[in-house]
Amino acid sequence: MAAAAGPGGFPVVGVVGGGQLARMMAGPAIELGITLRVLSRDPADSAAQVVPLDPSTDIGAEDDLEALRRFAKGCDVLTFDHEHVPTEHLRALEADGVVVRPGPDALEHAQDKLHMRRRLTALGVPCPRWAEVASAVELERFGAGVGWPVVLKTPRGGYDGKGVRLVSSAADADDWLGRGGPLLAEERVGFSRELAVVVARSPHGQAAVWPVVETVQVDGICREVLAPADITEEHALAAQQVALRIADGLGVTGVLAVEMFDTADGVLVNELAMRPHNSGHWTIEGSRTSQFEQHLRAVLDLPLGDTSMTASYVAMSNVLGGDIAEMYPGYLHCFAHDPGVRIHMYGKDVRPGRKVGHTTALGEDADSVRARAKHAAAFLRGDIDG
Amino acid sequence: MAAAAGPGGFPVVGVVGGGQLARMMAGPAIELGITLRVLSRDPADSAAQVVPLDPSTDIGAEDDLEALRRFAKGCDVLTFDHEHVPTEHLRALEADGVVVRPGPDALEHAQDKLHMRRRLTALGVPCPRWAEVASAVELERFGAGVGWPVVLKTPRGGYDGKGVRLVSSAADADDWLGRGGPLLAEERVGFSRELAVVVARSPHGQAAVWPVVETVQVDGICREVLAPADITEEHALAAQQVALRIADGLGVTGVLAVEMFDTADGVLVNELAMRPHNSGHWTIEGSRTSQFEQHLRAVLDLPLGDTSMTASYVAMSNVLGGDIAEMYPGYLHCFAHDPGVRIHMYGKDVRPGRKVGHTTALGEDADSVRARAKHAAAFLRGDIDG
Repeated sequence: MAAAAGPGGFPVVGVVGGGQLARMMAGPAIELGITLRVLSRDPADSAAQVVPLDPSTDIGAEDDLEALRRFAKGCDVLTFDHEHVPTEHLRALEADGVVVRPGPDALEHAQDKLHMRRRLTALGVPCPRWAEVASAVELERFGAGVGWPVVLKTPRGGYDGKGVRLVSSAADADDWLGRGGPLLAEERVGFSRELAVVVARSPHGQAAVWPVVETVQVDGICREVLAPADITEEHALAAQQVALRIADGLGVTGVLAVEMFDTADGVLVNELAMRPHNSGHWTIEGSRTSQFEQHLRAVLDLPLGDTSMTASYVAMSNVLGGDIAEMYPGYLHCFAHDPGVRIHMYGKDVRPGRKVGHTTALGEDADSVRARAKHAAAFLRGDIDG
Repeated sequence: MAAAAGPGGFPVVGVVGGGQLARMMAGPAIELGITLRVLSRDPADSAAQVVPLDPSTDIGAEDDLEALRRFAKGCDVLTFDHEHVPTEHLRALEADGVVVRPGPDALEHAQDKLHMRRRLTALGVPCPRWAEVASAVELERFGAGVGWPVVLKTPRGGYDGKGVRLVSSAADADDWLGRGGPLLAEERVGFSRELAVVVARSPHGQAAVWPVVETVQVDGICREVLAPADITEEHALAAQQVALRIADGLGVTGVLAVEMFDTADGVLVNELAMRPHNSGHWTIEGSRTSQFEQHLRAVLDLPLGDTSMTASYVAMSNVLGGDIAEMYPGYLHCFAHDPGVRIHMYGKDVRPGRKVGHTTALGEDADSVRARAKHAAAFLRGDIDG
């Protein structure tokens, strides 16, 4: 058990990063009686708005080791809203005796895509063909082998379509190649759909997996998630086994999301995230245990919860910033139109294309569930008049 | 719509009272993007632990009008964790322009049991036979009419078995009668079980009702809630109609819980609470919309959410303080034993008999669901070894 720094012998979980993922851990932490602390850059950050904040310890940057040290004091376990904490800082915290979950060895695979590809390939996990490229010659050689266009990624710092581009020749990549660091080149996979598997793994090695979902991405940003994916049971089991193998092989603690391409030859792993993930937001109402509660249970080494669904079909739509700056008035229409629709807002200022919330619908018909979640999300951002 | 005092045009709901009911509103408020503020007597109160706290406005007593005024400034709507705010203070706040939901006219029926009995009787709502008694002679006359023992209640201030006693003669009530104020005398009803109906009503008059539940009380304290109650559909509809009639007749806004006796002649109303209530805790996971989210939606005059159940049977067991001061270690057994069981803790120090949390189980078999919730609650308080 944890060292029990909180009231009544309950543990304190410290989350580095004040985004919506930390925010969505707050509800489950409250219910479980677990104290949640969040290290945010700004008191106006999504999670910082809703969690009691001690400005002397809870405001700071994730790349500031002294800020991390101040924050970690009094936390039973440190975990993350994002993957941007430098690995060397995590190792320094571990050397101080801080319990870090997931640990730096595991987390590095979600921070560095080259590192991830090397390791997954070594584990025998199916991946797109890939190469480390540091020059135009190397990129040309890779493109000639797998066919253009090629997907080019910066190993670190990418998310929501950032740090990824499609290039048709090495000349397209002059700017990135000119920076001198190695890049990850991947074949452009011809996929029928994108899938994701979210799994949780605890330090004592227990793992629990949710049903495979289909994700719909537009311009590299997740727009919709449909649970379960419309695939055969055998196919779903194979995808879950890939995710479980990765969680175990990398020694993940906490929630791991594995994004996959579904191809004629089976699934290929696209990206990893070692934290609750957009592809698991549907679990808040759609599963007996949400990914946010499960992440807390996993990093505290508590037994994991039931991942079964609470309805036959669950759909999630992201609410992206659009023309409407104030989304609250849209609640009137959305809730009157559909008493069963669920709205989640992240406390973020609306900016075009920014993820500011999501909607969820549950039911017995996949198409209607999907349409309901989409309708609410589109109405809130101002795409339709009702 | 509310005046939108919070970030992004989202409203601020102020809850008077820092108990577990305010605490359990925090999760839904976070998800909806609504700012929840809580007026607590002490920063260590159940809800004050988990909600950002401004000590200059958010610490104070519910009977201190100036504290209420400071707190209400900047809230779009004021609501309650309990019924202990003096009615005259609520009227003063309304005169200041504060939106108070439920309003003092409605709330008084939950504060003053004599007032409640008079009004329900006028509305034609079935109640146990009752009388206002101020003297031994009046009590003797009532007891002679309905038969001894008689249930005697103080009109104000009672909860969890406090302010209620069974008397076998007027002499048994000497101390209470000696205080001089009027008392409420009620016949002791021969009931087959206790039922509760939780309903929400919004200012524009929309109402939504959850399934009728059976409550199991021991020494006046709720120990278990079983949803739905094992009664006929016709009987359930009649009980729901009683609750809806009360909500409408009293002009309730927010959640109303109606506790009832189930008798051979139909239901008789026992008590009212105008706030989320112990008999509705099962809705957190057991209904598509929890009573806590519904209360927020109702007091904000948003359309109400779907009250259907997420499983065929849901059982809730209260965790009362027992021999074990630290309940967190019990999570290991409870979660390993039953991955589907849900634990809610209120951040309260354990004291014998005090409600410090509750457990919930969901499933397709009523007996097993009840046994699971009871097992976890009993294990946490230390009644069994596993």
